[in-house]
Amino acid sequence: MKKKNKKVNAAILIIGNEILSGRTQDKNISFICNWLNNNCGITVSEVRIIPDVEKTIIMNIKVLSKKFNYVFTTGGIGPTHDDITAQSIAKAFKKKYIFHKEAYKILENYYGKNQFNEGRKKMAKMPDGAKLIYNPSSAAPGFITKNVLSLPGVPSILNSMIENAKKYLVKGLKVHSRTLNLFTVESNISKKLSSIQKKYKKFVDIGSYPFFRLGKIGVSIVSRSTSKLKLEIVSKELLLLAKNKKIKILKI
Amino acid sequence: MKKKNKKVNAAILIIGNEILSGRTQDKNISFICNWLNNNCGITVSEVRIIPDVEKTIIMNIKVLSKKFNYVFTTGGIGPTHDDITAQSIAKAFKKKYIFHKEAYKILENYYGKNQFNEGRKKMAKMPDGAKLIYNPSSAAPGFITKNVLSLPGVPSILNSMIENAKKYLVKGLKVHSRTLNLFTVESNISKKLSSIQKKYKKFVDIGSYPFFRLGKIGVSIVSRSTSKLKLEIVSKELLLLAKNKKIKILKI
Repeated sequence: MKKKNKKVNAAILIIGNEILSGRTQDKNISFICNWLNNNCGITVSEVRIIPDVEKTIIMNIKVLSKKFNYVFTTGGIGPTHDDITAQSIAKAFKKKYIFHKEAYKILENYYGKNQFNEGRKKMAKMPDGAKLIYNPSSAAPGFITKNVLSLPGVPSILNSMIENAKKYLVKGLKVHSRTLNLFTVESNISKKLSSIQKKYKKFVDIGSYPFFRLGKIGVSIVSRSTSKLKLEIVSKELLLLAKNKKIKILKI
Repeated sequence: MKKKNKKVNAAILIIGNEILSGRTQDKNISFICNWLNNNCGITVSEVRIIPDVEKTIIMNIKVLSKKFNYVFTTGGIGPTHDDITAQSIAKAFKKKYIFHKEAYKILENYYGKNQFNEGRKKMAKMPDGAKLIYNPSSAAPGFITKNVLSLPGVPSILNSMIENAKKYLVKGLKVHSRTLNLFTVESNISKKLSSIQKKYKKFVDIGSYPFFRLGKIGVSIVSRSTSKLKLEIVSKELLLLAKNKKIKILKI
């Protein structure tokens, strides 16, 4: 993984009717967002959740792979009829959908020749030229096609294999963050906060999020920047704002 | 709310850097998806998560409001500088961004004239012609502009007010579902499952989702359809498949 001194971004494409129906609570989005920022300095700039419909997958792969440095797909790479991610990516990039020799061997070894049935063989079919993302927990590999990395939908399996995606990624600048938790309401500080944001808008993003804790209402002020120095400067201004307004700080 | 005998769909647009940074685990997507299907017969067909960036919000509002019957936005309607949903929707629809008289009164009553500061007044500014979605828990209303319904990002507040959005929605056909939990692996049933799906593809969507329970691996077969009758027919075929393959069923 090369170290580059620039911003690198990604999109996540969650493929799965079970998330859209509300049946399953997604757990992969926050995991991938955190992992990419903390380990690769890559910022997730957009997430889309779409159904298991071929033309929808193809259209989204085309749009997102042009717009962002990387696209991470989750879901749809298993053995059943509703697993159509690999064939859709192949169509999106006008590549053949064929057996990947190494993936075929991995799966054949894992299941044994007698148990290597049609459904299991399907998991070795990928877009022509795809490279493997190894799966240490259940064998069936993910893969990268151009700048699109395809991972499974089951969180425990995805989590176990994401480290193996690292070698395909160009590293960007990590975004650091500082959180200041204040026992106040947003509207009490919104004017001053807005002027601090304006002053540092080139370097720091400031977000404001209400919370309820210990029976009290509060606001988390989250500052994010690739520069630790600028973050310290903003933190001091925020502490001064709290002091001037006599706002109690929640220390965690 | 009118009862219509047709499919009605929606998109959800989650506006918030805190979700993309991985800091906050989203809870609104599955809540809204479930609520829309169970209470209104509306299917969520796409979800997007985007940052607090005006041009990104405008572009997504334009695209999604044309493509789907309804768009639900969450987040960005509070009093701080990073709350830019209302002004962005106004720009997307080329409407003025002005004080909503009733919203202004509601907020002035709630806070009292002396405490009704600039940040709080901002929550009464909306696209011209917007109608209110009342908020029983913290006063600041959501609103509907054309087919776009804007709700807050804090889950407890969103949950408390979503019933008040119902009167603006045309009801569609509810999608019913049946789940069959089998103690087997996907690849053992994928071929037969695929042929059942093909046979009923016009009426029923069948999804297959691995699970781990009681120390065993299993597969949840979820069938979804607007027709209860078709769902019963498919359920019988799936039970027969389990019987023929001698697969144990997990009863919950």
